[in-house]
Amino acid sequence: MNFRDKLTRAVDANDSLVCVGLDPDPSKLPAAVQDKDNPVLYFNKAIIDATADLVCVYKPNWAFYGALGACAWPTIKGTLEHVPDNVPVLVDAKVGDIGSTAERYARMFFDEMGADALTVTPYMGTDAVEPFTAYRDKGVILVCLTSNPGADDFEKQQLADGPLYEYVARQAQVWNTAGNCGLVVGGTQPEHMARMRALVPEMPFLIPGIGAQGGDLEAAVAKGQNADGAGIMVNSSRGIIYASDGPDFAEAARQAVLELRDRINQYRKQPA
Amino acid sequence: MNFRDKLTRAVDANDSLVCVGLDPDPSKLPAAVQDKDNPVLYFNKAIIDATADLVCVYKPNWAFYGALGACAWPTIKGTLEHVPDNVPVLVDAKVGDIGSTAERYARMFFDEMGADALTVTPYMGTDAVEPFTAYRDKGVILVCLTSNPGADDFEKQQLADGPLYEYVARQAQVWNTAGNCGLVVGGTQPEHMARMRALVPEMPFLIPGIGAQGGDLEAAVAKGQNADGAGIMVNSSRGIIYASDGPDFAEAARQAVLELRDRINQYRKQPA
Repeated sequence: MNFRDKLTRAVDANDSLVCVGLDPDPSKLPAAVQDKDNPVLYFNKAIIDATADLVCVYKPNWAFYGALGACAWPTIKGTLEHVPDNVPVLVDAKVGDIGSTAERYARMFFDEMGADALTVTPYMGTDAVEPFTAYRDKGVILVCLTSNPGADDFEKQQLADGPLYEYVARQAQVWNTAGNCGLVVGGTQPEHMARMRALVPEMPFLIPGIGAQGGDLEAAVAKGQNADGAGIMVNSSRGIIYASDGPDFAEAARQAVLELRDRINQYRKQPA
Repeated sequence: MNFRDKLTRAVDANDSLVCVGLDPDPSKLPAAVQDKDNPVLYFNKAIIDATADLVCVYKPNWAFYGALGACAWPTIKGTLEHVPDNVPVLVDAKVGDIGSTAERYARMFFDEMGADALTVTPYMGTDAVEPFTAYRDKGVILVCLTSNPGADDFEKQQLADGPLYEYVARQAQVWNTAGNCGLVVGGTQPEHMARMRALVPEMPFLIPGIGAQGGDLEAAVAKGQNADGAGIMVNSSRGIIYASDGPDFAEAARQAVLELRDRINQYRKQPA
């Protein structure tokens, strides 16, 4: 099943727009997992088991696995294999390189790792993006307007027709011939969210930044959702996976997802 | 020794501005290595053994290793360990993410993998770059003006003060407090090379695109070099590592590096 349909089914089945960011830092894991063979993998599996019926997508950030060195591959591969088939996995790696190299990244993340979707940095242009969109069943979520302070440095620079990030969104429309593109739109940018939704009414948004980074959840959901009360993946990572550092970390994560899901659902339109 | 000094010493010792791109595609390796335990690692070691006295830096592109899946880590780690201590290694991964994630990438590539330098995509802004430049001994080569056709799509968009890529170069000057920044400046862009050198007289340039991508070597060297006839790393990958597909592939790679080194040196200024 393609990413878009898999996401829609998970949204409906779990009545959820929650994206859980699986970004485990070994130094922050609960004592209860530290003596396991692979503490990060054990931790991830427990989080997934506790939350898979409440989320619409999981988003492991590749940097947190790459930093494990020799354990990187077995840990991320084991994590993806543990996610139930009815929940899609979006790997956050923000890759971007010339065409022949982008093909290798597509092979890495889609074929070898088994991701359903991938974040891609589009600034090297069309030939850096097409090797990913050519995987018509996979989702390609383009870095557009991010949630960090540095978003001001380049993304908001003014071009003749408006800011750079809007130009990215317009280009994404051009690249979206298979209907498999989406955008990263930071939850710390609610004043721009309505405009982004107007620019690309159909495209799914990955919305980071509503937890530790302090974004405004109500504004992000109210203005970011599409006409059907969906079309957004609201990411929380630290607020969920570190909800407790005790042996109850997985149950605490479940409670945190439940609360976030219900808060988001308050602000959703009813499907027509 | 820091990256900058290690690079300068290798340039001087080997009288070379050649950067060899170690981007091995398993489907393109010579038959002579296909029966080895790890064909890619065997191939890389043979190329390194044949060329280490003729280059100033090696540049493995992480995508080509990541695409090996479970073999990714042992292959790139074994490759870096095989490079002699007096030749620096620049890992090309074009990473860019928010600060807390960028820290994990810095750990991955600098601490775990052992790279002397890394390519970084700067478009998420200052907080996405500082975790790398904070490694004062490591080189941070910022994606600026690339060699691919898609460079036209975003990098050359006009801001109030000039094109986006010039703005990246000016920001790089700001981030360069430890003297450890450099820029990617494509060899297919010789008309912009003199301007880039004028903007950042001291910063090293990684120059891709002069081989298979068809860049103009004379113009790139003549206009890209600094006042001392150095300051550029002229990358060739396919033209060197696939110089022969026979059992003489390593010797052919050596010949190809020798020729490129000597062609580049024709156009270098003599140090003052």
